[in-house]
Amino acid sequence: MDTVCLDMEGVLFPEIWISVAERMGIPELRRTTRDEPDYDVLMRYRMDILYRKGITLAAIQEVIAALRPLNGAEDFMRRLRTRFQVLILSDTFYQFAMPLVSQIGYPVIFCHALLSDSRGMISGYRLRQPEAKRAVVCAFREQLKMRVIAMGDSYNDTAMLQAADQGVLFCPPQNVIDEFPQFPVARTYPEAESLFEAASARFTE
Amino acid sequence: MDTVCLDMEGVLFPEIWISVAERMGIPELRRTTRDEPDYDVLMRYRMDILYRKGITLAAIQEVIAALRPLNGAEDFMRRLRTRFQVLILSDTFYQFAMPLVSQIGYPVIFCHALLSDSRGMISGYRLRQPEAKRAVVCAFREQLKMRVIAMGDSYNDTAMLQAADQGVLFCPPQNVIDEFPQFPVARTYPEAESLFEAASARFTE
Repeated sequence: MDTVCLDMEGVLFPEIWISVAERMGIPELRRTTRDEPDYDVLMRYRMDILYRKGITLAAIQEVIAALRPLNGAEDFMRRLRTRFQVLILSDTFYQFAMPLVSQIGYPVIFCHALLSDSRGMISGYRLRQPEAKRAVVCAFREQLKMRVIAMGDSYNDTAMLQAADQGVLFCPPQNVIDEFPQFPVARTYPEAESLFEAASARFTE
Repeated sequence: MDTVCLDMEGVLFPEIWISVAERMGIPELRRTTRDEPDYDVLMRYRMDILYRKGITLAAIQEVIAALRPLNGAEDFMRRLRTRFQVLILSDTFYQFAMPLVSQIGYPVIFCHALLSDSRGMISGYRLRQPEAKRAVVCAFREQLKMRVIAMGDSYNDTAMLQAADQGVLFCPPQNVIDEFPQFPVARTYPEAESLFEAASARFTE
């Protein structure tokens, strides 16, 4: 029984900050690590916008709770959990993720935590650990002697994919495909499942 | 967001081998590690009985699939997963466990694997790793920097309970209570949840 580690945004759900930006009509919040590679600078920028507009964590959570899984994601998860131990590894925050994972049967998810102040405003964040996604894959392989398949869609997943027994890219942008030709690409959930099954069969050869 | 590691048999489901013994009318299969402390000797004894009676893995799986969660276990799991990351750590086998976890929403489970021969008879087993339950708790605490609460009902859980930030005994026999007075005892699911919440609150003090 092998373990599958899945990124959440872009794989099971739409990008959270972009969805929040659109639904709240705040285009400045569309900014991502592609525009601002320094994560801490980016988060301070986001918190500053929310603070100035008086938008509480609860208000954002309400918007996030209205997001729906990508088309087919629920069935994908349902099938996957009969065949593998499935973990979600995400760089989002528990406060954002829980209203989403509740829609797909509460898989285990490891992500980061937001801090909020007495007014309910986001006041900071706490990363679970450095290189959080990669650390889980490494711990599972090295300490727990498991075979791990990892799938994600973007740059911030590639360290986890490289650490896994088998990495898979899901609907990635072309530049990620070009830079990481070693990872097979799945463009649909059934394609991903075929790649997982093939990897799993190779592990037991 | 803390992690809760739960034993399966005696905590969420009845004891599997004892249930199989009763439902198949084979009292010899009631033997457990309490009667035969050498696990390998016990497993060879069980496999020998099944082999002599011509009972296949599929036939046992059918019996196991008819087992039901302990009273209240489904709701307990449902509530727990909204508050914690929940893992099942069990010394049973995936082939036995999957028909059971399917009834409680496929939580992640780490256990061992059975081997079967061309006739579908159980021919051996492969332990995931030595001290498998304890290894998961240690990896989560040490490598993944998580706080771990662990709950089990018997001797073979005490190493995992000792390794956790907080261990809890669930409906244990009196000799386990006497030998491990350091662990609080829960006799109902709501009592367990209260102990988990109290531990979680202490972690953030």
